[in-house]
Amino acid sequence: MHEFELIRQIFRDAGYARPQGAVAHSIGDDCALLNVPTGQQLAVSTDSLLEGVHFPAGTDSFLLGQRALAVAVSDLAAMGATPIAFTLALSLPQADVDWLRGFSRGLEVMAHKTAITLVGGDTTRGPLNIGLTVMGTVPAGQALLRSTAQPGQQLWVSGPLGAAAAALRVLDGSCVIDETTSAALLASYWTPEPQLRLGQWLLGRGAAVLDVSDGLLADAGHLATESGVQVVIEQALVPVSSAASVLSAEQALSWALTGGDDYQLVFSLSADQAVALQEQFPAASRIGYVCTGQGVLLLDGQGQVVGVERAGYQHF
Amino acid sequence: MHEFELIRQIFRDAGYARPQGAVAHSIGDDCALLNVPTGQQLAVSTDSLLEGVHFPAGTDSFLLGQRALAVAVSDLAAMGATPIAFTLALSLPQADVDWLRGFSRGLEVMAHKTAITLVGGDTTRGPLNIGLTVMGTVPAGQALLRSTAQPGQQLWVSGPLGAAAAALRVLDGSCVIDETTSAALLASYWTPEPQLRLGQWLLGRGAAVLDVSDGLLADAGHLATESGVQVVIEQALVPVSSAASVLSAEQALSWALTGGDDYQLVFSLSADQAVALQEQFPAASRIGYVCTGQGVLLLDGQGQVVGVERAGYQHF
Repeated sequence: MHEFELIRQIFRDAGYARPQGAVAHSIGDDCALLNVPTGQQLAVSTDSLLEGVHFPAGTDSFLLGQRALAVAVSDLAAMGATPIAFTLALSLPQADVDWLRGFSRGLEVMAHKTAITLVGGDTTRGPLNIGLTVMGTVPAGQALLRSTAQPGQQLWVSGPLGAAAAALRVLDGSCVIDETTSAALLASYWTPEPQLRLGQWLLGRGAAVLDVSDGLLADAGHLATESGVQVVIEQALVPVSSAASVLSAEQALSWALTGGDDYQLVFSLSADQAVALQEQFPAASRIGYVCTGQGVLLLDGQGQVVGVERAGYQHF
Repeated sequence: MHEFELIRQIFRDAGYARPQGAVAHSIGDDCALLNVPTGQQLAVSTDSLLEGVHFPAGTDSFLLGQRALAVAVSDLAAMGATPIAFTLALSLPQADVDWLRGFSRGLEVMAHKTAITLVGGDTTRGPLNIGLTVMGTVPAGQALLRSTAQPGQQLWVSGPLGAAAAALRVLDGSCVIDETTSAALLASYWTPEPQLRLGQWLLGRGAAVLDVSDGLLADAGHLATESGVQVVIEQALVPVSSAASVLSAEQALSWALTGGDDYQLVFSLSADQAVALQEQFPAASRIGYVCTGQGVLLLDGQGQVVGVERAGYQHF
């Protein structure tokens, strides 16, 4: 089967590749065409997932399709954007139709959940590498940035952390636990939920935002650097995944602080928005505050500085 | 050196990554932000280039940067779009600073030539894989498609073909020729010129267009299929690269018909536009015509059907 037939049969004919909404023209020409309404800007982000780096070799392709798209769409959530379209650059060692069908179904489930449409791509033979570029719209001048945190704001996270890091230990066999906990951890890992509704709610509320992909401390550090502020995190307030805690409470806290991969949002917000936030998003937790200075301080229960490691996953 | 520093030092600080024109916000947040003026649509296309598939192992990174971006921007040219921004998803085996600087300079030269800005990316450790997503703007509803060819139109190509295929034989050592010819072929291969001015000129003129990436016959076949027409190509009219012809006239014609990689535009156009076209674009050649039917017919000097092979490079 040659490249064009492969793409046409499996991706082009898929339900999530039909032009709708802002997508004026989809797969089949040299470019796709998108409509960006007056008063909106286009938000765009690119992610690559490599076998052996971002996911274990032999991963089920359905799970991979779901997760790859969720991870990419999370960047749109972090800017407060509404998803419209994505492109797929896929390298794979051979044209395995079963693998491709599973992957396509995984993409389809997440595309449906996040209301995004496949508009183009490129398939080549090579080591498994999934490149996704996601696009969305956001009201002009209102996109959520990392650089707008102000001293005096509170620091929040959208939900519990640490489950994805724990799941990776289950996947690589370094942690062995009961089936129920294992299933909960793996579900968190394979289907992270892009925080689109929260991102859109935060528009116009003065928040500085990013998604937790490298680990809470590392990502809070990015927010501090870009905003020119200090971020203080109270360790006791950090919400730790209950499933991860089954393994070891101490270990789970460490994963929550440095593990990454959970794709919750971390954001600054002024105190007068806190009640409205908690009404709308009961899973969100206040974990600290923003003050003048630089870097990230992690405080223990006695208000002592525990310190900050250089954290998060580094590719080089 | 870790990922963030690597990206910041080499790509973020590069001249071609400074927000300008339609780029409202560039590298540094979860997404870049683009302005799409009222009355315009966004055109978007993704390409991957893999070592050993799309370019020989050990290729000079400056040449690679130039060519990778030119190939991607060619898709914008084929739709009549004006480039605004691109993202880079780069996998490479190690963080080789010299390699990265060369690659970045290559991108910079082509970004300057085509007036496009780097707005984001993702760098990971893995087999060398260059993923580029390019974005541009095009007047709403006017983008050039493959599906609008009409019986009675002429078929044109923007310039000579076959040099890139010949260059690949020089690169892999299967053809040995004099230095002058070799230099001309390699220049064509490493710096294809995206036909942006021609694409923009064709807007509103009823042309069906695509770029020659898979080979003239294969790409003319895509145009025929998408338009529901037959395309007739007169072999004697196909412009063959003079440098490629030095090797062998017969072989050069074959490369021109099936070689691909030249990134000229092939397009249909009504006869009454032909004079204006040739005044503006003297390198363009009429190579045949469009009629009712399907597929591609290749005719020899006597008007006999030479036939059509299933041509172009197939990844699977």
